[in-house]
Amino acid sequence: MNIAQIEAAAARLDGHVRRTPLLSSPFLDEIAGRRVLVKPECLQHTGSFKFRGGWSALSALEPEVRARGVLAYSSGNHAQGVALAAARHGAPAVIVMPSDAPTLKIDNTRALGAEVVLYDRSTEDREEIGARLAAERGLTLIKPYDEPLVIAGQGTVGLEIAAQAAAEGVTEADVLVCCGGGGLTSGIALACEARAPGLRVRPVEPEGFDDVARSLVSGRIERNDRTAGGFCDAIITPAPGELTFPIMHRLCGPGLVVSDDEVRRAMAFAFLRLKLVAEPGGAVALAAALFHADEIAGDAVVVVISGGNADPGVFAAALGTLE
Amino acid sequence: MNIAQIEAAAARLDGHVRRTPLLSSPFLDEIAGRRVLVKPECLQHTGSFKFRGGWSALSALEPEVRARGVLAYSSGNHAQGVALAAARHGAPAVIVMPSDAPTLKIDNTRALGAEVVLYDRSTEDREEIGARLAAERGLTLIKPYDEPLVIAGQGTVGLEIAAQAAAEGVTEADVLVCCGGGGLTSGIALACEARAPGLRVRPVEPEGFDDVARSLVSGRIERNDRTAGGFCDAIITPAPGELTFPIMHRLCGPGLVVSDDEVRRAMAFAFLRLKLVAEPGGAVALAAALFHADEIAGDAVVVVISGGNADPGVFAAALGTLE
Repeated sequence: MNIAQIEAAAARLDGHVRRTPLLSSPFLDEIAGRRVLVKPECLQHTGSFKFRGGWSALSALEPEVRARGVLAYSSGNHAQGVALAAARHGAPAVIVMPSDAPTLKIDNTRALGAEVVLYDRSTEDREEIGARLAAERGLTLIKPYDEPLVIAGQGTVGLEIAAQAAAEGVTEADVLVCCGGGGLTSGIALACEARAPGLRVRPVEPEGFDDVARSLVSGRIERNDRTAGGFCDAIITPAPGELTFPIMHRLCGPGLVVSDDEVRRAMAFAFLRLKLVAEPGGAVALAAALFHADEIAGDAVVVVISGGNADPGVFAAALGTLE
Repeated sequence: MNIAQIEAAAARLDGHVRRTPLLSSPFLDEIAGRRVLVKPECLQHTGSFKFRGGWSALSALEPEVRARGVLAYSSGNHAQGVALAAARHGAPAVIVMPSDAPTLKIDNTRALGAEVVLYDRSTEDREEIGARLAAERGLTLIKPYDEPLVIAGQGTVGLEIAAQAAAEGVTEADVLVCCGGGGLTSGIALACEARAPGLRVRPVEPEGFDDVARSLVSGRIERNDRTAGGFCDAIITPAPGELTFPIMHRLCGPGLVVSDDEVRRAMAFAFLRLKLVAEPGGAVALAAALFHADEIAGDAVVVVISGGNADPGVFAAALGTLE
């Protein structure tokens, strides 16, 4: 992976993906004790950065391959990102989703034009279902993070951060990134290495699912004990990817780990001070900036809010932390 | 008032005010039956468009006049907009606020560096208090809407809409604007007249406080029976302004009037589909686009979300409409 792949993705994304702004609030600066610059990918199409990777992958396929259709496994944001990217390319999309995925996310994925194939997590194997569908119909699998085209697409967030932070006079800072499998984190890290070498990416994860932080310490891929039951569902994955981990290991600073309560409070501050809806997994980086300030150095910090597909009840409960 | 005043304001605002994006969602398009392009001024500094007018007015003062300080009356968004604009100009700001204003808004205004003078709505006259302070200290009053520099500042929203809608291929559409005293509405109307004559501005108000809609029908300034107790507090004013009404009468299409329940549902859809926090007064235009589609013509509609300073409890209650 290199910067040329990210720049090629940026060229394919141009005019199709939103260039999200870089936001700030003096109230957040005060809490964090430094300038906080927020990149709100919750404002991206489908409500998360995943549309970038989906578009990057779809747009790079040979037209006749794309016309046969694409396949993705996902219970959430990757599903919607691939579904919309496929719809806008006029390509069929099949998304294999667990039958207990949130109804809203299933409905959204269907409404974006995808065929949703539900499976029972306890009795069926999604990879087997996917492999059969792919073979029968000639579908191309779009992996959620361990795929160069997807990493390159997510890396365009980093190109934008490099330019937007420089415009704010910030060229030396930590960039805190909500991290699941590491597609977004490694993509941003590659972009910053080339375009803003004073910006250092640091992955942020929730307590109990800190596989990347531990992997960065040990120098090899460490796994989570469990992958179910996490509050920050969008960024809970078994382990860093085979492609993403070496990039993160080479380029990232130490991982940060936040509690679910800190995530709720960060969601509430995003509401109050930025007028943004962040989902739990999308708010971990802001939580680290606000509540782990002593683990961060420098006069400024860049924070990615990676998604906003929050359940209304979960969001309302998070607002309760303001009382 | 003319376009040159708005362009002069835009030059003063450049680099200090956010150029908010133009957002959309296929799910909103489906509800509205046409393309819906949303201008989210809730993402502006201080959480509402009011910062534009505040900056426009402050930046146009003679330095020695500005150094003596400015004065504003407001219980909400204008207070915060003027306070931050003053702070960034290094000028003192005195904001006269009712003692029963929301604690959060009083605290925010103070935190932004302003001196807050509280008065009792039932026993004191804010204009008398303001006049005394202005005389004693040589403060300059910044009116919330009936002031050319303020109208020009708000009009910069219209310059951005004209350019951003054209980039989306939309040159003929209604532009729905949340309307209180008419500063934002008249400013956008003047900008569109000059830069996007196919865009027609229409004010949107809540039921029971439809002074502008009635004034546009009768051709003269009509007043509201009451100015207290409205759900959409940010846009409830006694009557359209002496300066803003003639502009609206000359340039605007018919007003639209929405119910409080429609406003709550629009807030919920802004949460769900745009990942934005809209306050009640900031959501009336979106409510009209979604729920009064038969009163609107054309393939597309532009909607301004004017502010996002929603009370957490009010916001959580609005999310309840999604169940």
